[in-house]
Amino acid sequence: MQLYTYFRSSAAYRVRIALGLKGLDYTGVPVHLVKNGGEHLQPRYRQVNPGALVPTLVDGATHIPQSLAIIEYLEETHPTPALLPSDAAGRARVRALALDVACDLHPLNNLRVLDYLTGSLGLSGTQRKDWYRHWVAVGLATVEQRLAGHPATGRFCHGDVPTMADCCLVPQIFNAARFGCSLDGFPAIRRIVEECEQLPAFRAAAPASQPDAE
Amino acid sequence: MQLYTYFRSSAAYRVRIALGLKGLDYTGVPVHLVKNGGEHLQPRYRQVNPGALVPTLVDGATHIPQSLAIIEYLEETHPTPALLPSDAAGRARVRALALDVACDLHPLNNLRVLDYLTGSLGLSGTQRKDWYRHWVAVGLATVEQRLAGHPATGRFCHGDVPTMADCCLVPQIFNAARFGCSLDGFPAIRRIVEECEQLPAFRAAAPASQPDAE
Repeated sequence: MQLYTYFRSSAAYRVRIALGLKGLDYTGVPVHLVKNGGEHLQPRYRQVNPGALVPTLVDGATHIPQSLAIIEYLEETHPTPALLPSDAAGRARVRALALDVACDLHPLNNLRVLDYLTGSLGLSGTQRKDWYRHWVAVGLATVEQRLAGHPATGRFCHGDVPTMADCCLVPQIFNAARFGCSLDGFPAIRRIVEECEQLPAFRAAAPASQPDAE
Repeated sequence: MQLYTYFRSSAAYRVRIALGLKGLDYTGVPVHLVKNGGEHLQPRYRQVNPGALVPTLVDGATHIPQSLAIIEYLEETHPTPALLPSDAAGRARVRALALDVACDLHPLNNLRVLDYLTGSLGLSGTQRKDWYRHWVAVGLATVEQRLAGHPATGRFCHGDVPTMADCCLVPQIFNAARFGCSLDGFPAIRRIVEECEQLPAFRAAAPASQPDAE
């Protein structure tokens, strides 16, 4: 398998964690989102993924965009170890936590959106940072409320083994820290992320561990 | 089952379609996103869903937020008729199309985001509309490229029966039309949406068919 990836891409980072947790080998193909006017915007990468976003997983003739579609695909084709629990209600809880990050938080703070704010809308760097921090605060508050005190929350987001929810949460917290967002109000999240960071799969997937890291 | 819904919510509309395609009965509980300062923002609804977004599905003791987590749950608990194909690559394609809408397009144009633009950022109504149309144009261009000429595209997004991808596409096109976005460049999308609109489940799920419609 090949994974088109960028070391700092939060969505690619999710998939790198999932691949690592499942112990799957893959070849990383770096796509630099800044250099050369953004390699993801060029025809060469658009042929791989017309959405011009990373990651894309290539498995033989199958090209899969969208990090959560990739993780679900890995779950179906390589079920062990599972990244979703076995019961429908638990699976729904894990998927909802993953989507809280992947739908309601991350897309608002994607590079192309931040660039639209300061480019097309002519907003200042301060307004760009405020925007970023606002949506992080709103999004993480939701996740914290779903995790804190919930009987299904364990060492990780759901029980005592990492799931797709943890694959999404850790990269989001990395991003939040990079942009100087306060995590003071999110003790359950902080505790779970610390647990995750003990595991080799999470460490190997981190931006700083990637061959294309700067 | 109970579905917390708002007639115009694109995410709730997706779930209403899925429930209809599966022939499942449910009780709609309207949550008005504008009246009373936004009923979704009040403690009563936040107890149901701390994310303060619709929809939420309640099935016995199980509360599920996030439209795609709900649709996956319905797929697992009521597998027939299926809203995902049977092969892993096909399932990945359908999920990716659904996520193209649910992650990369819709969250940018959600009411709370539009309100932040004109509220906190003090942008004009014109800039708000331009923002909306920009992300619709970018997002639909991706979906169009994935659909047009792809061998798996059939009467619907994937083959000749509706899937989770169609559940996401139709509400997005309803929204785009409401905001006056041009659909001229998206003939494959337009054709598929017209196919969907022939089906009773899609018609019954439409905003105008809801008891809380205005």
